[in-house]
Amino acid sequence: MIEVLRLTHRIRRDPRLSSHVALTARAFLADKIYYSGDRDSKFESSINNTVNRFGGPFEILYVEDALKFVKKRKENGFLIIHTTMYGLKLDGVINKIKASKNILIIIGSERVEPGFYELSDYNVSVTNQPHSEVAALAVFLHMLKNGEEFDHKFKDSKLTINPDKAGKVVVEKR
Amino acid sequence: MIEVLRLTHRIRRDPRLSSHVALTARAFLADKIYYSGDRDSKFESSINNTVNRFGGPFEILYVEDALKFVKKRKENGFLIIHTTMYGLKLDGVINKIKASKNILIIIGSERVEPGFYELSDYNVSVTNQPHSEVAALAVFLHMLKNGEEFDHKFKDSKLTINPDKAGKVVVEKR
Repeated sequence: MIEVLRLTHRIRRDPRLSSHVALTARAFLADKIYYSGDRDSKFESSINNTVNRFGGPFEILYVEDALKFVKKRKENGFLIIHTTMYGLKLDGVINKIKASKNILIIIGSERVEPGFYELSDYNVSVTNQPHSEVAALAVFLHMLKNGEEFDHKFKDSKLTINPDKAGKVVVEKR
Repeated sequence: MIEVLRLTHRIRRDPRLSSHVALTARAFLADKIYYSGDRDSKFESSINNTVNRFGGPFEILYVEDALKFVKKRKENGFLIIHTTMYGLKLDGVINKIKASKNILIIIGSERVEPGFYELSDYNVSVTNQPHSEVAALAVFLHMLKNGEEFDHKFKDSKLTINPDKAGKVVVEKR
């Protein structure tokens, strides 16, 4: 079970970035995304809409108290990862992380409370440079899953895209 | 030389996403980012500010006519890549792409004109699922550079972040 937690979503500031985080979580084979901050039904329904069209399973769920949620996941045996530009280099710890079956990946936004650093089994950097939580999540999951995302078939999809040299080949199930 | 072209930037819609694209290009070792659409001095200065603090070389440049620009790059021997969920699977073509020294990677936004599909040597998908141009660029460059981004040292940086288990270790040059 691979779960992602997006911290402190802001409706005014983050709608597109949070969508990119959630869609990246799905495309790179996480099972669920949780988010805290502003509850946002538009965000949830746009992700659910993608799952309906392109397949699943994938869930989006709101979390009231993110710190309490992480504590509970840890009690339940999840390995807690926090992606941050300040953390240990991913290429040095990825093999240890792969040994765990249940992983929760915390994705920050703006300032992250110290509690999340303390609760995490690994604070992990995808380069120690400023860039993007979306990029960090994608490369983290790509390495965690050994590139499985390229061949994965989602279940119950209505639309499938067939790779093409120069066009758009969309196959619709009827 | 690895260059990125971000198509049709919109000041109202895209400021944070375009920043994520540009910072991801830099962190994953592209040399330059070009962008078309709305000229945006705030976008440019925020990227230049990151280069000043965290090092380079990396450039951001505005392009008036993106299609003309791509044609010229192609004439100059650049391999043209367009990342799109409709394209050929990246894992199947990355080794051919690696053979080129000069590469231009086109990153779409909203609808991409057919001309870009036609001019591209490779239309490439980083999974045939909907997700994020930021994620696609990160995984593309990660695979192109064989993970070199983890050990890269940028030049003339004022700030360096040292990987740390649970804290923030920022080293400032004086």
